[in-house]
Amino acid sequence: MSPSASSSAASATSIENTREYGVLEQLRAFKNDKSAAEAFAADTLKIARQLEPALKAFEYLPSQSHASGHGPLNGIPVAIKDVIATSDAPTTNGSPIYAGHVPDTDAWVVDRLRNLGATIFGKTVSTEFAWRQPGPTVNPWNPKHTPGGSSSGSAASVAAGIVPLALGTQTLGSVVRPAAFNGVVGYKPSFGAIPRSGVHALSPSLDHVGFFARRVDDVAYALSLLAATSDADIHGRPLPPFEVSAEQGLAPSKPPRIAVARMALWSRAEADQKKIFDDAVAKLKSAGAIVEDVVFGDLDKSAWDTCLTVLSSEASVIYAGYIERHPDKISEHLKSLVKTGKSHSAYDYLTAKHRQSVYRQAVEAQISDFDVILTLPAFGEAPEGLAYTGDAEYCAPWTLLGVPAVSMPAGFGKRGLPLGIQLAGKYRQDLHTLSVAKWIEDTLAFRPGLAPLATQ
Amino acid sequence: MSPSASSSAASATSIENTREYGVLEQLRAFKNDKSAAEAFAADTLKIARQLEPALKAFEYLPSQSHASGHGPLNGIPVAIKDVIATSDAPTTNGSPIYAGHVPDTDAWVVDRLRNLGATIFGKTVSTEFAWRQPGPTVNPWNPKHTPGGSSSGSAASVAAGIVPLALGTQTLGSVVRPAAFNGVVGYKPSFGAIPRSGVHALSPSLDHVGFFARRVDDVAYALSLLAATSDADIHGRPLPPFEVSAEQGLAPSKPPRIAVARMALWSRAEADQKKIFDDAVAKLKSAGAIVEDVVFGDLDKSAWDTCLTVLSSEASVIYAGYIERHPDKISEHLKSLVKTGKSHSAYDYLTAKHRQSVYRQAVEAQISDFDVILTLPAFGEAPEGLAYTGDAEYCAPWTLLGVPAVSMPAGFGKRGLPLGIQLAGKYRQDLHTLSVAKWIEDTLAFRPGLAPLATQ
Repeated sequence: MSPSASSSAASATSIENTREYGVLEQLRAFKNDKSAAEAFAADTLKIARQLEPALKAFEYLPSQSHASGHGPLNGIPVAIKDVIATSDAPTTNGSPIYAGHVPDTDAWVVDRLRNLGATIFGKTVSTEFAWRQPGPTVNPWNPKHTPGGSSSGSAASVAAGIVPLALGTQTLGSVVRPAAFNGVVGYKPSFGAIPRSGVHALSPSLDHVGFFARRVDDVAYALSLLAATSDADIHGRPLPPFEVSAEQGLAPSKPPRIAVARMALWSRAEADQKKIFDDAVAKLKSAGAIVEDVVFGDLDKSAWDTCLTVLSSEASVIYAGYIERHPDKISEHLKSLVKTGKSHSAYDYLTAKHRQSVYRQAVEAQISDFDVILTLPAFGEAPEGLAYTGDAEYCAPWTLLGVPAVSMPAGFGKRGLPLGIQLAGKYRQDLHTLSVAKWIEDTLAFRPGLAPLATQ
Repeated sequence: MSPSASSSAASATSIENTREYGVLEQLRAFKNDKSAAEAFAADTLKIARQLEPALKAFEYLPSQSHASGHGPLNGIPVAIKDVIATSDAPTTNGSPIYAGHVPDTDAWVVDRLRNLGATIFGKTVSTEFAWRQPGPTVNPWNPKHTPGGSSSGSAASVAAGIVPLALGTQTLGSVVRPAAFNGVVGYKPSFGAIPRSGVHALSPSLDHVGFFARRVDDVAYALSLLAATSDADIHGRPLPPFEVSAEQGLAPSKPPRIAVARMALWSRAEADQKKIFDDAVAKLKSAGAIVEDVVFGDLDKSAWDTCLTVLSSEASVIYAGYIERHPDKISEHLKSLVKTGKSHSAYDYLTAKHRQSVYRQAVEAQISDFDVILTLPAFGEAPEGLAYTGDAEYCAPWTLLGVPAVSMPAGFGKRGLPLGIQLAGKYRQDLHTLSVAKWIEDTLAFRPGLAPLATQ
């Protein structure tokens, strides 16, 4: 397609049916129509307000929304999880303790997004301090079900077509799981790829900034713009720099070598989740992927306990003071986490930290002949009810290793809610992991579309 | 001086009286006399063998010693503390468990030194795993006194004129203190400036690679060549790159602004150590330095306990297994450290780690108007006897902060042993710290010369 054909196609598209566009599709539509970005920004606010009474995805909505007029993300509204500091909007961290609190400065990643021309669009509901106490957000595929957590509002706002990109955080499974529950792409980069300054900490050894979007291209584009190190986050490790063309998107890999990891957890997965997964594996194999089953002994057995030892120990130091000062404003979930954390010895904590690096090396050696690991993102569809945001056990191993993890929609379950698959890559090989994800996305050719709540 | 004058001066100098040369002085002497480097290498081995029966600085001496013929450190013999892995020489880590053990690969820093043309010259005595159980090395200023530790042999081998540069490690005060006790320059760079891969860990949050030399120029030159990051040591933080000319050395700073920190420990310092310090302060002030007393409340009060909590907790995970497998080959010092470490909760450990970053920020803010902190390196001369390597309390605060620390000779005590002063700089401002150290070195104009044992 020639640029002029592309341009006239974009101009001919009405705003309404661009709500399902991804970031790059949207940028292409803006390219030769200067007014489109501004119109989209205004429309985003209209739609967000319209859906909010039912969806409850936002802790805060801006009073107006404008495209900045410059930069590689000009015109793209990005919703920000409410544990990430914004200097022009309240940042509650999902806690009544911070009701109405406006930080003095933007988080590093928010500042960066502004400089890239993105429109910082509202603050999305997070569970309390990104731990377990849920907010009011519903699943836009069925409001009786949880959207997952802790990045509840970010996942739901992308699934409902409000924004094409949202920031989340993941300490166990808070990006990958809600992405699967909402039928969108979720991405957790390699540990240390994006500075976390201004992101409320839950467990510094496990906290990651991640994205929700509708296409693999979009998370790759976002990562290429946001990967960096900052002196303020000493855990940063620079990724090899890479560029993703807004015009071309990411080039898919050749048919990849896939290590299929059903894990010991498989027996607890729902039947339709298993079927979607096995069908995907068969389809990828037919398309030329080399597919082999792998078994991760120690990681499989103790990733969850290792994560919880590290997480609860680190969280106990961060949240003990909050419990002392605001005993009536902290959930039992968080109180219990701190209690568990305080029960660990330094020896147990440091042994768990040591296992983290031992497992990273062992898994890297074990999958040296593969491009990616393919596994589940969750046990099945989003659970019914809003009290419980679902189980993160399928996500924890990859968060512990700090490797890139991608959740992609792959089908629907028996209750009509989305089901996904999860890819885990090699540490700091984010670009390669994403180019494999793109090949898989192309091969599965499954687009769930906007959630029903978007068109109510 | 013209190059030819310099060359003829170097040629005219006999090998014997170049033993007191620093690295840069030695390199200048080699420059126009190709045979000088080779002769110096051979002479180093001869002198080391001659002094070793009395000094006991080496765990291992090479059977021969040659200049490599190329690189910015060509002809410079560098002694390596025996907790640092060498693939061509035993690395005992100061423990009988590792008697005769030759590692498969060089430590990062050893590999780097070889590539720079240095001659890896022997392995120097370390206390057991760089903790407290001493080795046999004596103080070359008085063999009845400890050389300090844990980098005992490295400090003594420079003081005795065997090598102009030696590698040490510092987890509390294992470079700065023995440097002071031996009348040489000791340098601990900013935390993370030099990769520690292949260096036996004692406490990864506190372990630093450092140097012993005879001049500030020499440690600056070494740092300019060795500062780097490596994927194998994730605690690395790149320093701003800088070059030190082998010809010119480091340019001294202008008269600096000096924060004088006597600390609460001052009451325990020996009278002649206090006098040397106060005389130095007066001399620096007369030469134009701006000098002000500062008091560090929290750091002063709890740096030591904070260090020991972090160190013992981390060491307990590293050494508990050794104690199980080799109960009869581990000292009571190390057993006691592991026992203490195992008594800490994760909460206490992580609170101590948190204090580490809080103190770093607080001190940096407090000294923002100063160039460096001036303090003591130890309480006085090296203690008598070899059982106790001396107290590291004056060193611990700066190790905890991870800031650059320089120990410089400043005089002699009443027993005829050297006394020093210590500078602490700002995190990752190693070059500026060293240029201030150079100004102070020039201003004090004190060179203790070789230790008496060198000429026995």
